[in-house]
Order: sequence, then C-alpha cells, then structure tokens
Amino acid sequence: MTVTRDLSPVSGGDNAALPGLQVELARDEPMRLDSGQSIGPFTAAYTTCGDLNSDKSNAVLVCHALTGDQYVLENNPVTGKPGWWELMVGPGKPLDTDRYFIICVNVLGGCLGSTGPRDINSDTGELWGLDFPVITIGDMVRAQALLLDHMGIDQLFCVIGGSMGAMQVLEWASKYSERVFSAVPIAGAARHSAQNIAFHEVGRQAIMADPDWRKGNYLREGVNPKGGLSVARMAAHITYLSETALHRKFGRRLQARDAISFGFDADFQVESYLRHQGSTFVERFDANSYLYITRAMDYFDLAAEHDGVLAGAFEGTTVRFCIISFNSDWLFPTEESREVVRALNAVAANVSFVEIDTDKGHDAFLLEEPEFYATVSGFLEGAAEHRGLTAK
Amino acid sequence: MTVTRDLSPVSGGDNAALPGLQVELARDEPMRLDSGQSIGPFTAAYTTCGDLNSDKSNAVLVCHALTGDQYVLENNPVTGKPGWWELMVGPGKPLDTDRYFIICVNVLGGCLGSTGPRDINSDTGELWGLDFPVITIGDMVRAQALLLDHMGIDQLFCVIGGSMGAMQVLEWASKYSERVFSAVPIAGAARHSAQNIAFHEVGRQAIMADPDWRKGNYLREGVNPKGGLSVARMAAHITYLSETALHRKFGRRLQARDAISFGFDADFQVESYLRHQGSTFVERFDANSYLYITRAMDYFDLAAEHDGVLAGAFEGTTVRFCIISFNSDWLFPTEESREVVRALNAVAANVSFVEIDTDKGHDAFLLEEPEFYATVSGFLEGAAEHRGLTAK
Repeated sequence: MTVTRDLSPVSGGDNAALPGLQVELARDEPMRLDSGQSIGPFTAAYTTCGDLNSDKSNAVLVCHALTGDQYVLENNPVTGKPGWWELMVGPGKPLDTDRYFIICVNVLGGCLGSTGPRDINSDTGELWGLDFPVITIGDMVRAQALLLDHMGIDQLFCVIGGSMGAMQVLEWASKYSERVFSAVPIAGAARHSAQNIAFHEVGRQAIMADPDWRKGNYLREGVNPKGGLSVARMAAHITYLSETALHRKFGRRLQARDAISFGFDADFQVESYLRHQGSTFVERFDANSYLYITRAMDYFDLAAEHDGVLAGAFEGTTVRFCIISFNSDWLFPTEESREVVRALNAVAANVSFVEIDTDKGHDAFLLEEPEFYATVSGFLEGAAEHRGLTAK
Repeated sequence: MTVTRDLSPVSGGDNAALPGLQVELARDEPMRLDSGQSIGPFTAAYTTCGDLNSDKSNAVLVCHALTGDQYVLENNPVTGKPGWWELMVGPGKPLDTDRYFIICVNVLGGCLGSTGPRDINSDTGELWGLDFPVITIGDMVRAQALLLDHMGIDQLFCVIGGSMGAMQVLEWASKYSERVFSAVPIAGAARHSAQNIAFHEVGRQAIMADPDWRKGNYLREGVNPKGGLSVARMAAHITYLSETALHRKFGRRLQARDAISFGFDADFQVESYLRHQGSTFVERFDANSYLYITRAMDYFDLAAEHDGVLAGAFEGTTVRFCIISFNSDWLFPTEESREVVRALNAVAANVSFVEIDTDKGHDAFLLEEPEFYATVSGFLEGAAEHRGLTAK
C-alpha cells in the first residue's frame, strides 16, 4: 500500500518514499466534496503510534494545523526535525502511546503525501495545480472518516487538534458525533473571523503576485513562487505569536551587529528571525497547497448550515468536550472558544472549558506550557475511565 | 520658489505642478543626517492654512503618518480626495484655521514633493533610488526645523500628529523643546515595538521580492513593483483596524454573490476591501519611499540616546503635553503611550493623558470620534490661553 512519492514540494525531482503510511481511498466511488465536485481515488498519508487495542476503542485522531503534517512524533522527513507534537504525544505524555493508538493524517489538499494540487490528476495525467477542487474543512474530515473506515475503526476515543486542527475537531463532533467519544479543540473557532480571512488573503495575494506562481502552473513550468510564499509565511507567523512573546524573544535587539546599519539588511533580530521563517518554509511547503488550505479555513463556518445558530451544530451530542484557549492568542481569541462553549451549553453538552494563562500567543499549543498539557492529561484520564480504557 | 514636479509616483511621466508650496532647504550647507551622511539642497513640499499672526506665535505643525502627506485640508492632487485631516483642521475645527496657522510638510524621503528616493540626485544627475540616504524620524524633524527657520517661526504653538506623526511630535519635544509650546502625540510610541518592526519587514520583503522592484531601480527601468507594494499595504492595513471594526464592517459577508464560489476570487467583502486598499495605494505611493519611511519608524527609539531611560529625553522640558491613545489600537497600544506619560511624570512635565474609548483601532485618529476631537479642542483651548492667543 506504500506509494512512492516526491518528498520535495520544490524540486519535483527525487522520488523518495515517505516514511509513514499511505493508502488510496475512494477507490470504488469518488468522494463527494462540499463544492459539489468529486475526488477519487485519492491518497491519504498518515502516521500511527502506539497499538490499536482489540476492540479498537483506544484510537485518537490528531488533526494538524495549516502548515502541519502527519509527523506528530517521528522525525519530519523533509526538515529532519522531531515531530511537531512531541510534547503532547509519546510514552507517558498526555496522548500516551502506551495507552492510546494515535493517528495523524496529512489533510486532503496538503503537500506531504496526501493528494493535493501538486499531484497528478489521474483522470488527465496532468498536474492538478489550480484544477484541484477547492476543499473545505468538511472535506478534510470526510477523507479522514474514509481512512477510519479503511482501518475498521468505528469510533474515536478522542479527536484533538489546535488551530485548523480545532476546526476539524469541531467538524468531527458535529458531523460524526456517533464516531467521537471525546473532543479537544484547542485555540480554535467555529468560524474564521474577518481579520483572519484578511490575513489569509494577504498571504494568497503575496503568492499570486509572484510571477513565478504562473497562475498556479509553476510546477509544470519548473519554477517556484518562493518569494511570495515566503512573504505569506512571514505575515502569518507574526499572528502566531503574541506581542509580549515577540518583545521578550527579540525586543529591539540587533542581529550580529553593534549599531543599526542605516540600510535594509536585517538589523533587528526579529527581522532575521522572520526571514528565516520565510525561507525555511518554502523548502517544505507547496504554494498552491497554501492557497487551498487557507481557503478551507476561510470557508469554515459551522453555524452557517444551521441558520447561523451554532448550537444547532451540536444538537443531541453525546461527545465529551474539553475546549482550550490561550489568553494571549489574538488569532483565535478566547472569546471564539467561549462561543463554542455557549453553543454546547445551550444543548446541555458535556463540556469543560479552560483558558490557559500564557504570554506565548496562538502557538502556545505547540510549546512548553505545563498547565496546558496537564489540562489535556486530566481530561483524557477522566474520559478514558468512562470509556473503560484502563491504564496499561 | 514653486518647483515643477512629477505628480505620479508610477508613470514618471507628466510633470504637473503640485498644489501647495515647495522650498529648497539646506542650500548653503548640506543638512547632516543621523546616519552621518549629508543631504542638501533638498526640497520640502508643504501646505499652510490660516494666517500667521504678527508675532508668529500661532503656528501649528501637523506631522503626517507613514503614508500621509501635506494635504491635511485641501484636496489631494493625486487621489482627488479631501484632505486627510478635514475632521481636525478647518474653521471652527479643533485646529481652527480662523485662529491658528497650520503647516504640514511632506516628510523627507516621501514621494509627494519633498525630496525622496524617486527624485534626482543633483550631485549625480541620476535618480536616487537606493542611493538615497537612510533617514530617521530625527532627520524628518530636522528638515521641518529648517523649514521653520526659513519661515522665520521661532516657536510652534503646537506640534501634533498621529502614528508616525506622534513619533515626530515626541522628537520635536525632545530635541527642540524650546521651539515647542505644546505637543499632542496621538496613537504613538517612543520606540517601535518588535511586532511593528516585524510587520514593516513583511511589507519591505513583499516589495523587494517583486521582480519589478529591480533592486530599487524600477523607475530607471520603467517598471513599478505594484504587486509587492500592494501586498505590503494590505498587510499594514489590517493593523490599522481593530478586529471589532473589521467584524462590524464586514463580518463574513460575501461580496456581490449569494454563496461562496469555491475559488480564489474575493468571495468575502473583507477580501475585496483589502484588494482595493492595495490597488489604490500603488497609484499614489512610491515603493522605495515605503521602504525608507518604514525604516525610519523602525529605527525610532527615543530612550536609546539616553541610556535607555526615556525620561532623559525630556529632562527640564517646559512643553505642555497632551498624550492621546485609543483603547482598541493594537498597533500602538495604550501601554506605549503610558510609557511616555510615565517618563514625562518622572521629569515633572506638564502632561495630560487621555485614552479614548473606541472600537475603531489605530486609524481612529483619522475617523469620526467626537471624544477625540473634543479632547484636542479642550487641550488647545487651555494652551492657547496660556500662550496669550485670543480667540478670533
């Protein structure tokens, strides 16, 4: 079932096999998308850690964020860096791999093994590019549900994720509530705010303004809109941090010099840091995937299908929720989590809500933040007891 | 003294005369810049409204923001729109033109008549481009002081401005305190924060990533980095508004359509609005000027010259200060104004401080906000009385 795929979103050159698993889904019947288009067969690339128990009741689905991937624990094959949620997942960690079976899937539309715009459209034999259908958070989750079908897992013990991951968690809990025992949306929202759409639009315009984007055909033409993608990443990256964190980390300190240069080099550490964020990102991410995934987030609005009443999305739910926000997160402020809590309260759902006190901003869910991990641990402990999952 | 200049930052084509006044300064001796370089002669383009009284004691200097200009009251010749501070300046307005003599100068390094990177270096006969010296807020103010010398004005009754204008106001009060009777820095700071430097760096990188920037030589090569400049403006524009204002103004409302398009057009009003902000901006602003002026703001740090002690910048001051901030301004949060207030208190300065309650964000100083204008009126009324300026 392992498919050989190109690791590099840039060169389109060396076809090394991706670590982890890949499976072709929607083979018999294409998967219907929210846009009305269909896709299939398509590839889902994923990783697992831990062991699935005999009654398949200990599966935890981790949903990754905008630029995340399936490498939660094992080293990322492109960057060589440790898994992005090492602090959360592993033996003895909140998502204890001695106890739970962890699954993480590269989202549909992504660029690390799951089918996306940089892949070949098997119907035409051509690169998808902008012919790839616009996908939604609902479509990402639909694809994940097909993967669970393939794995024979009826119900997830937990579905958990931060940022765009939290959107997927809420979508899971709303659309597949019978398949979810507990849900932990972190630093998320039930809809993307005007300000967040605006920041995404800046990123997309930066990419599309790059002449090397070639109306989305850059791979076909052997170029790469690195400049635009790098600017998009830089702008987004600022929103992931708090002003306090930026100030503490960099302040107005100079980068490897004693005095300002009176020029346009990176005089300040914060400039150098941002440039680095931009330049490393373009080595691991596909520009068109960035367009598609940001668009999916923009389109997310769980209440819209229920006449604008968010509670309607959770009517009759039996899912146990733990909603987590960070008080210095200005991208997904606590108020947006509170809206979800209020909607869940309105349908008498089982919900706990914790706002973590931290100055690290949105990215806190990826960082050392003991109270956060303790919160997840505690919640899962209680949920596991109710689910009859005994500690190993 | 009127110099014929090119109105359009883009075409470099039609040489129409700019309305307003222009004067050549530093004719006898070049002006020394903070970088150690010198510049001169150079042109200062400015407008005035009202009449200078016989003892020249009723002059008010308005300092404009990053992308502002000298057209506070009269129509902007490039956009055709009314002056940018019509709400503040005019007969019966807080800056009452029946009472005060208002001066506003396009900053050094700007692109609307004052010498900047899009002009000819008279030493070489070539376009300045990136050979233009990097200037600071201090240099902008130094140039304004030369203009006042030229006009024979020893002391300003008031110096006032928002955002980058506030930086100039603080610089005036610190470096030329004997020439300032009262000072009103609005929505400003005594130094540019790490987050603000980061946003500026994104804008600069967007410009410099545009192949039409041509390492700053675009005018010489007959092109214009519109794409990059537009993205820079879009990113910056988000920071000028509050999330609440964006939400109220646009929310998730769609632009001239009933349903999302499942594409990358501007589905949402906020996207359409941002694109418009970007595309109109490039018609009126020069990309290199944007680099230079953002850099001047980044470099601003009034305490740095006083061993990091801001109070040192105001030692012995006799200036009357009115510091104003807006509670929803996240670009220049109230806390940064409070730092200035604390420094002024530490030297027992005459200072009042008002935080205006508004949800309009940083741009509130340009918008309808009655309490704000009432505050400025009230302060100026008292100051005028002390200065012996009787109402007309």
